[in-house]
Amino acid sequence: RIRVLFTAMEPADIAELLGEIDEQRLPILFRILPKELAAETFVEMDSDEQELLINAFSERELHDVVEELFVDDAVDIIEEMPANVVKRILRHTDSEMRNSINEILRYPKDSAGSIMTTEYVSLKKDMTVSEAFDRIRRTGVDKETIYTCYVTDTDRKLIGLVTVKELLLSPYNTVINTIMEKNIISVETLDDKEEVANMFDKYDFMSLPVVDKENRLVGIVTFDDAIDVIQEENTEDIQKMGALQPIEETYLKTPVWRHAKNRIVWLLLLMLSATITGSIIENYEAAFTALPILVAFIPMLMDTGGNCGAQSSTMIIRGLALDEITPKDIMKIMFKEIRIAVVVGLILAAVNTLRIYIMYSGQDPLFLSAVTGLSLIATVVIAKMLGGVLPILAKLCKLDPALMASPLITTIVDTCSVIIFFNIALWIMSWGI
Amino acid sequence: RIRVLFTAMEPADIAELLGEIDEQRLPILFRILPKELAAETFVEMDSDEQELLINAFSERELHDVVEELFVDDAVDIIEEMPANVVKRILRHTDSEMRNSINEILRYPKDSAGSIMTTEYVSLKKDMTVSEAFDRIRRTGVDKETIYTCYVTDTDRKLIGLVTVKELLLSPYNTVINTIMEKNIISVETLDDKEEVANMFDKYDFMSLPVVDKENRLVGIVTFDDAIDVIQEENTEDIQKMGALQPIEETYLKTPVWRHAKNRIVWLLLLMLSATITGSIIENYEAAFTALPILVAFIPMLMDTGGNCGAQSSTMIIRGLALDEITPKDIMKIMFKEIRIAVVVGLILAAVNTLRIYIMYSGQDPLFLSAVTGLSLIATVVIAKMLGGVLPILAKLCKLDPALMASPLITTIVDTCSVIIFFNIALWIMSWGI
Ligand SMILES: [Mg+2]
Ligand SMILES: [Mg+2]
Ligand SMILES: [Mg+2]
Ligand SMILES: [Mg+2]
Ligand SMILES: [Mg+2]
Ligand SMILES: [Mg+2]
Ligand SMILES: [Mg+2]
Ligand SMILES: [Mg+2]
Ligand SMILES: [Mg+2]
Ligand SMILES: [Mg+2]
Ligand SMILES: [Mg+2]
Ligand SMILES: [Mg+2]
Ligand SMILES: [Mg+2]
Repeated sequence: RIRVLFTAMEPADIAELLGEIDEQRLPILFRILPKELAAETFVEMDSDEQELLINAFSERELHDVVEELFVDDAVDIIEEMPANVVKRILRHTDSEMRNSINEILRYPKDSAGSIMTTEYVSLKKDMTVSEAFDRIRRTGVDKETIYTCYVTDTDRKLIGLVTVKELLLSPYNTVINTIMEKNIISVETLDDKEEVANMFDKYDFMSLPVVDKENRLVGIVTFDDAIDVIQEENTEDIQKMGALQPIEETYLKTPVWRHAKNRIVWLLLLMLSATITGSIIENYEAAFTALPILVAFIPMLMDTGGNCGAQSSTMIIRGLALDEITPKDIMKIMFKEIRIAVVVGLILAAVNTLRIYIMYSGQDPLFLSAVTGLSLIATVVIAKMLGGVLPILAKLCKLDPALMASPLITTIVDTCSVIIFFNIALWIMSWGI
Repeated sequence: RIRVLFTAMEPADIAELLGEIDEQRLPILFRILPKELAAETFVEMDSDEQELLINAFSERELHDVVEELFVDDAVDIIEEMPANVVKRILRHTDSEMRNSINEILRYPKDSAGSIMTTEYVSLKKDMTVSEAFDRIRRTGVDKETIYTCYVTDTDRKLIGLVTVKELLLSPYNTVINTIMEKNIISVETLDDKEEVANMFDKYDFMSLPVVDKENRLVGIVTFDDAIDVIQEENTEDIQKMGALQPIEETYLKTPVWRHAKNRIVWLLLLMLSATITGSIIENYEAAFTALPILVAFIPMLMDTGGNCGAQSSTMIIRGLALDEITPKDIMKIMFKEIRIAVVVGLILAAVNTLRIYIMYSGQDPLFLSAVTGLSLIATVVIAKMLGGVLPILAKLCKLDPALMASPLITTIVDTCSVIIFFNIALWIMSWGI
């Protein structure tokens, strides 16, 4: 009965369900699944559950699962397993699959090669449409996608592609050469996987061919794996923008000490940087002991500066990630940010003046609003310029622009805002009004 | 010659190229494109360039482009055009397309209905595979995807689906009913498009059927449009986390006043909230005029609190967006964040003590490190708890968790940290050491 229930479900949903079941009963329930569904479900499970299952599997059961795996999924699983489990898995692969797995494992972590699969349909240019269909029928069951077929010459060089739609709409005796698309967008094995994923967004392809330096076809990347990369890269950017070192596991599965480790580096760095601001404040002791109310404006000024910088850097970091902004736009951006800063700064200063006249009407509101208003405008301009420019400079220095986000910019702007504030205060005080 | 060059290029690349050409020459260059490529390129262009082109088009030219458009792309274009241009476009659609466009336009902005297209292949359950192929061949040219075909009954109710792969691997006389998948994952017209996009991530489908409340098939969403939604939703979250009201246009295309408008609301709100922290500081005037060095520690404490809160809220907001965290995990998260906070807080306090003994060895380092160390630990715990819990509470209140990000949490934590700091200082001072 459970079996019937399971067969009506998607593998991802079964995996989710099995993930909530206790460890003892997991292998028992997993064995209820029919062979193919079992393999599909296995792929969707978390790696700790996969490991648990493999350790519970007989050689026969492990074989049944491994046999059904796509090469790229097998690689993903193997990457997370301890050496003895890897050995057991590899023992059940045929030599062709083992070669492919080893090849993919050799590519660097963020490369196109590392996310590709080697199970594509390849055709020859002098085949007819009906021969192509024969080939698809014969070999298609085990391919990740059959809908885009790649045409290679005798050297395995990629010379064209044809979609099944094109094949279906052509007469059976048409020669592939006459209908194949010859202007092909491909990626190289060492290209950054983030760029590869962005190409799926841009071109709306279902799969992209991966070639080596000699234009030999070595694999394909499919859209579903590209979506995973897009989400991973977004997570990475968001985490970096939140002063975190990227974590690949989910929040709940990551142990406390690992969370702490991923947070402490930035915290220490930023804490020590913030002490610079503190030391600067010390230098103005005379000013704020003479006029203690000045201290009350520091948080407002520092926070506003930080928020302004965060806004600008957020826009630029995201624009860079989506290729909507390129480093050559730097002057345009600086000019734009300055104008935005002036508009925003004037409004903030005006509201601030209003507030001071209401709250501090007995304590020289003109002086206070002049000092804080001018400081606000200057701070906002500096914050927005830094927020606009630093991510681009990071990119030019081959650093990740996402590092130049709110936390770092806030700390830099804090220092600037305190210096500006006290100097403007001292300057206006020196008029002796 | 340019024509040959263009035909070797992808529509998205041609659109990018044309986007950099000056407005006078745009229509001239666009006219070089062969008819189908022209329409595909048109879809990829920015809406201001589309409008410019439509105004330059003859009725014939407009007709040629409109005729080739998919319904969902037509809707996207129409949504951005002024009323008179919309009228001109609609004049060139046939009544079936016009009905579909009007139907899709009626769905709310963030619904599945608004991103679907009505051009899918529908089959009947008593067709044979060869009849299905005939139908695909006859109607497939104009469909967004032919690879997943949907089986409907006489009431247009969705009863199954079959992929072209399945069709290709089955004998020609097989009846669709016997090979179609009957357990179908579908979405309803009013479902949130973000949830729909997340289903593509989860299930790896190429398309998802959209049904009405009576399970009648009204359209499909394809993976490429789901990728667009994923990117838009990520951008929206990132912008909200950066204290920005979401902007849909790209950074460079958005005018200064619009950027300013999208930033000022949060800035004003946060500036006014930060003045609360200022007012609280005023209350401790006696403390910091007696011991001015205390002021120097405020930025370090406020920034560290803000960063700690940002880290936690970033993890939780992202986890919620990816469905890795659900509101029922709230207690687990709170407990986890407290433990992380204690670890991190102790390390920060230790480093801080070290720094104080080096930099302020002449000014009662024991007192200063006790006050700042205890304040740090308390602030970090509060910041991480708020960062962990507020996004979930937002979700429970049907607010967007992304709003509970760094800027807001920083402002709240600032207030807490100042109160904690001065109270601990006064408390330890009261011992009279
Ligand atoms: Mg991989
Ligand atoms: Mg796209
Ligand atoms: Mg598209
Ligand atoms: Mg997959
Ligand atoms: Mg795959
Ligand atoms: Mg990356
Ligand atoms: Mg990145
Ligand atoms: Mg701050
Ligand atoms: Mg739309
Ligand atoms: Mg997926
Ligand atoms: Mg579409
Ligand atoms: Mg949304
Ligand atoms: Mg959202």
